[in-house]
Amino acid sequence: LLTDFGTIDPYVASMKGVLLSRADNITVVDITHEIAPQDVMGGAMVLAEAARWFPPSTVHIAVVDPGVGTAREPIAVRSGTHLFVGPNNGLLALAVRHPEEVRVLSAPDIQLASVSRTFHGRDLFAPAAAFLLRGRALADVGPPLDELCPLPLPPLRTLGDGSVEGEVLHVDHFGNLVTSLRAIDLPPTFEHIRLEGSHRAIPFGTTYSSVERGELVAYVGSAGWLEVAVREGSAAALLNARRGARARVVVQRGAR
Amino acid sequence: LLTDFGTIDPYVASMKGVLLSRADNITVVDITHEIAPQDVMGGAMVLAEAARWFPPSTVHIAVVDPGVGTAREPIAVRSGTHLFVGPNNGLLALAVRHPEEVRVLSAPDIQLASVSRTFHGRDLFAPAAAFLLRGRALADVGPPLDELCPLPLPPLRTLGDGSVEGEVLHVDHFGNLVTSLRAIDLPPTFEHIRLEGSHRAIPFGTTYSSVERGELVAYVGSAGWLEVAVREGSAAALLNARRGARARVVVQRGAR
Amino acid sequence: LLTDFGTIDPYVASMKGVLLSRADNITVVDITHEIAPQDVMGGAMVLAEAARWFPPSTVHIAVVDPGVGTAREPIAVRSGTHLFVGPNNGLLALAVRHPEEVRVLSAPDIQLASVSRTFHGRDLFAPAAAFLLRGRALADVGPPLDELCPLPLPPLRTLGDGSVEGEVLHVDHFGNLVTSLRAIDLPPTFEHIRLEGSHRAIPFGTTYSSVERGELVAYVGSAGWLEVAVREGSAAALLNARRGARARVVVQRGAR
Repeated sequence: LLTDFGTIDPYVASMKGVLLSRADNITVVDITHEIAPQDVMGGAMVLAEAARWFPPSTVHIAVVDPGVGTAREPIAVRSGTHLFVGPNNGLLALAVRHPEEVRVLSAPDIQLASVSRTFHGRDLFAPAAAFLLRGRALADVGPPLDELCPLPLPPLRTLGDGSVEGEVLHVDHFGNLVTSLRAIDLPPTFEHIRLEGSHRAIPFGTTYSSVERGELVAYVGSAGWLEVAVREGSAAALLNARRGARARVVVQRGAR
Repeated sequence: LLTDFGTIDPYVASMKGVLLSRADNITVVDITHEIAPQDVMGGAMVLAEAARWFPPSTVHIAVVDPGVGTAREPIAVRSGTHLFVGPNNGLLALAVRHPEEVRVLSAPDIQLASVSRTFHGRDLFAPAAAFLLRGRALADVGPPLDELCPLPLPPLRTLGDGSVEGEVLHVDHFGNLVTSLRAIDLPPTFEHIRLEGSHRAIPFGTTYSSVERGELVAYVGSAGWLEVAVREGSAAALLNARRGARARVVVQRGAR
Repeated sequence: LLTDFGTIDPYVASMKGVLLSRADNITVVDITHEIAPQDVMGGAMVLAEAARWFPPSTVHIAVVDPGVGTAREPIAVRSGTHLFVGPNNGLLALAVRHPEEVRVLSAPDIQLASVSRTFHGRDLFAPAAAFLLRGRALADVGPPLDELCPLPLPPLRTLGDGSVEGEVLHVDHFGNLVTSLRAIDLPPTFEHIRLEGSHRAIPFGTTYSSVERGELVAYVGSAGWLEVAVREGSAAALLNARRGARARVVVQRGAR
């Protein structure tokens, strides 16, 4: 389960109650319910990183859904040995790189008798996931769909001197900054990384311990994205950087 | 499990350890541990909404207990196919509308050898729930009690012009305001809803998408209470409204 | 599981995915993921208090690890019927008073194929725990180690008049102050407790209900440490006290 519902309210527990009422012998695991309200991008990133570690036959339910009650389709998707259930708004697009089968959730027997317009998590997504967890076929949830709605990732920009620029996509619990730049995006040789709004040249290393305590370092994180961190500190606080800040990998003239 | 213990401390995990030590093959599910400290009303609302989605034979443990160590009785209650364990202080009163059997927890073999005066969650409620989860009879936990302590809901007030007034009972994670007004309390025709301290007339709709982004709407939520929300925003922030604020459903003269 | 990872990010769920992928029929329980970042002392206290309530054969994974990627050893420890997996930095030292067998995690088949330098929780500790949960021998994880790294507890100081002084180790969710003083440390007769920076004499009682609402009381908590609380309030707020504040148990001249 991944949502932006928080854990203060009855929402998440209601979904779990529906799951446990409709499927036996399941293990329910929370990825997180602390996605910022309606932050489809943040939800997509966290889902993509966490989902890949789960065992075969896992059914992932993801709900970050600004459009609940409107026309976006509720879907279920097969990707390898996993199934994903959620809104078709880009949330599933990073976790599911190569969708093998996409279906719109519309069969009457996968829904609660009375589907509310505001709580598809409980009334539609949870019962649909329980239906699949009981071993029912994906083909039975509803008609096929050709395409999965993509997530609009910020463009990779290449500057005149060969430097490349992306964005901070996510600020994690430790103040580490996850950027939209992947290892494959990096120029073959480069000097350092800079964050919008700061003059600091951030060196590239392989781990926190490449630098002294309190110092900045950039590295390719365990999820494959370029990240910026402070050893035993918060890069977000030190650089005053937020989601959306531009991150530049700088190729200096002198270094070419 | 529903408590006001938070998840920073060892309290909740200690309860789970006791449960798993004393009952086999159980699934432990958190409703929430983020009830405001000692907010029996908020706990009662969240418990009532979440509990009804769980499967038969569920044992709910709820602990929001300002009176721990004093004279309020620890109880277990049967309601339909569910059992509830907690303090008799009103916390269970919304979830259990028609108690079928109420018992005081007093049998020695349902308690830890040494019951602390400050942590009944671990020392009394968790072992009592494990006792019931092992299939032991409710009658064996202690003597019967005639009544369940009620929760003092704010009164429904009817004004001279037929308008009705309740209170904001709960502010959820999204800033939605849950009021003490139920669908059955609403006048047959009414103009709009007003919140104490604001001049805005809030229209009544069926869902968020009845209105434009950033606009206010009132509707009967999935739990049956009148709620006030802002589409893709926070009603609590926009109206500067808190728990306890008066909420009025206005019948205007001209509309009669 | 106990970590300082928070629940916003994919870290904890990734660990659970690895556990569930590599061990069958396990129940995963969160102690907390809200230990303050890199607070080994706070983590050690919460782990020690919560771990003792779990059933035999529990494997505890604890990760609060400022030194990840450096020379501190990753270890597994047997203590009674429990196993503990984590960094050898003092985090396990309060939960494991009498280690029976300590091993360094180094066997290749207990690690993920590619161990990242920044995420031992997922790449090393979770697979090592899964290895042990599958019933494999502790001796197979790696070579033995003679000693467990101790946790530097603040010293118990005895003053000229027989008063004793310790420190606030932990401030809990309710604002209760947990000190480094244990029941065994208290002088046979004493007058009251004082906290650094406050002139209030805090009486010793047996429970919250020894005093009126809003009043201070000190007592030996359910974990065996001297705690200071305000009945239905926050001692941390009232005394403006934080972790590290000195706590003195005062033997007054007149009382001897």
